[in-house]
Amino acid sequence: MGDLIKGKDVANVITQEVKEAAEKIKQKGINPKLMIVRVGEREDDLAYERAALKRMESCNILCEVLKLPIDISQENFILALKKVNDDESVHGILLFRPLPKQINEDDVKFIIRPEKDIDCFNPINAAKVYEGDETGFPPCTPLAAMEILKYNKVNLKGSNSVVLGRSMVVGKPMAMLLLKEDATVTVCHSKTKNLSDVTRNADILIAAVGKSQMVDGNFVKDGAVVIDVGINVDEEGTMTGDVKTDECIDKASLITPVPGGVGSVTTAILAKHVIKACKLLNKQEGVL
Amino acid sequence: MGDLIKGKDVANVITQEVKEAAEKIKQKGINPKLMIVRVGEREDDLAYERAALKRMESCNILCEVLKLPIDISQENFILALKKVNDDESVHGILLFRPLPKQINEDDVKFIIRPEKDIDCFNPINAAKVYEGDETGFPPCTPLAAMEILKYNKVNLKGSNSVVLGRSMVVGKPMAMLLLKEDATVTVCHSKTKNLSDVTRNADILIAAVGKSQMVDGNFVKDGAVVIDVGINVDEEGTMTGDVKTDECIDKASLITPVPGGVGSVTTAILAKHVIKACKLLNKQEGVL
Repeated sequence: MGDLIKGKDVANVITQEVKEAAEKIKQKGINPKLMIVRVGEREDDLAYERAALKRMESCNILCEVLKLPIDISQENFILALKKVNDDESVHGILLFRPLPKQINEDDVKFIIRPEKDIDCFNPINAAKVYEGDETGFPPCTPLAAMEILKYNKVNLKGSNSVVLGRSMVVGKPMAMLLLKEDATVTVCHSKTKNLSDVTRNADILIAAVGKSQMVDGNFVKDGAVVIDVGINVDEEGTMTGDVKTDECIDKASLITPVPGGVGSVTTAILAKHVIKACKLLNKQEGVL
Repeated sequence: MGDLIKGKDVANVITQEVKEAAEKIKQKGINPKLMIVRVGEREDDLAYERAALKRMESCNILCEVLKLPIDISQENFILALKKVNDDESVHGILLFRPLPKQINEDDVKFIIRPEKDIDCFNPINAAKVYEGDETGFPPCTPLAAMEILKYNKVNLKGSNSVVLGRSMVVGKPMAMLLLKEDATVTVCHSKTKNLSDVTRNADILIAAVGKSQMVDGNFVKDGAVVIDVGINVDEEGTMTGDVKTDECIDKASLITPVPGGVGSVTTAILAKHVIKACKLLNKQEGVL
């Protein structure tokens, strides 16, 4: 039976580091600040917003929410986003997506300047993840998974890592981050044949498909590390991951739960990114 | 014993299509034109340049070479590149890389506008490949490999595809292009353990490591499709691929030779990209 890896421990370590970094920056007269841009009142966004506000408070990072109406025109949305982008007191911008239909993401994705784009909306940051250039901002969720692996000293180099899912938010950046650490990486998806045969070869299995408890014991090799990135909420509000944790823990050496796994680390990564952005922006202007 | 797939047949079909497209565009008074920008006189560049000039001639596409001295300053290089970029008669720009040391690629990679960047130098095009957005220009070599697979009606969907190599020029874009076609994709590299065990699972094996004849019969599953992207030239000037073709052909169902395989298709892709760029640029201005 393997160990259940709680995200909280990792989040606490990062929070402490970020808090100290924030203090140092403040001593130079700069106040690190995150601006969350939310269009409408989607429940997912509100939940993440509450968690982010709490984390920023723990890290001594300022955080403000710009609330925009769900029926905002693209023109007004662009004006609002540009204003935040130009605001020198704001270092990191988190824009909740998907945006409402009247706003074309292709028309707005280049607006947030790369140095403030802490959740990888701008293609310039996506390209950096793809290239393995660490000056950018990979999306917070796959980076949270990486931090959990590193905290637990999981050997990535030469490992057989299998990523289930190929989204731009988790699957693809996860594959790129693992590749950068010299893992041999396989990306699986809905069209993969004999899926459990493929995943059963994995030393490290990352589940990011968004199908509740799809990964059962049959998918997991003895001793594998299983990271569950899925967040699935049923009609009664119960949250489950993509993995049958109870079943897979018998085979895995390490496994993350849902809730309480990767999800509890993402806001800590967000805070870390605000500090990184703050340093990038100010170094450019010769302050830090 | 498998079939040896000559690149020439694929190149001929593409050349014919491109030639017809070029004719149609010319009837509207637009002359599709490629500008090759070469710094110095590296033998690889000169060989590719000769092949490209010949292909563009077959396709009825104008092609000019801007030759710059090997010791050009970054400042002057940028001026020259901007001039080509602003030249409305030029639709596609091919810049040979690597650039000499005094020129920092990070400082120049955004100069070529994405619509003219037909060999994926600009990160905005790299991001499109990563996202699976087909409006961009993937590098010509992996796209040539894809065209060979498609011409030979190789089933990609659900296939187990293994890419040997993770460069930005071949390995990574190849993985993204295969993923877009619903292949299950594994990326291997120098740190991969038990490499031949991994490749022996491949329905489709793409070799792009740049190590002469590294892939022998032991790497190949019976009936696999083997695409050899390697171009290795020894001291005597003999060109070899990454694959021991003579040995692997006994196991493979289809296999590409070197020379005469993928390499013979890349300039046809380049020509296709000039037409695509020409259409993109002119559609924007309402001509085509």
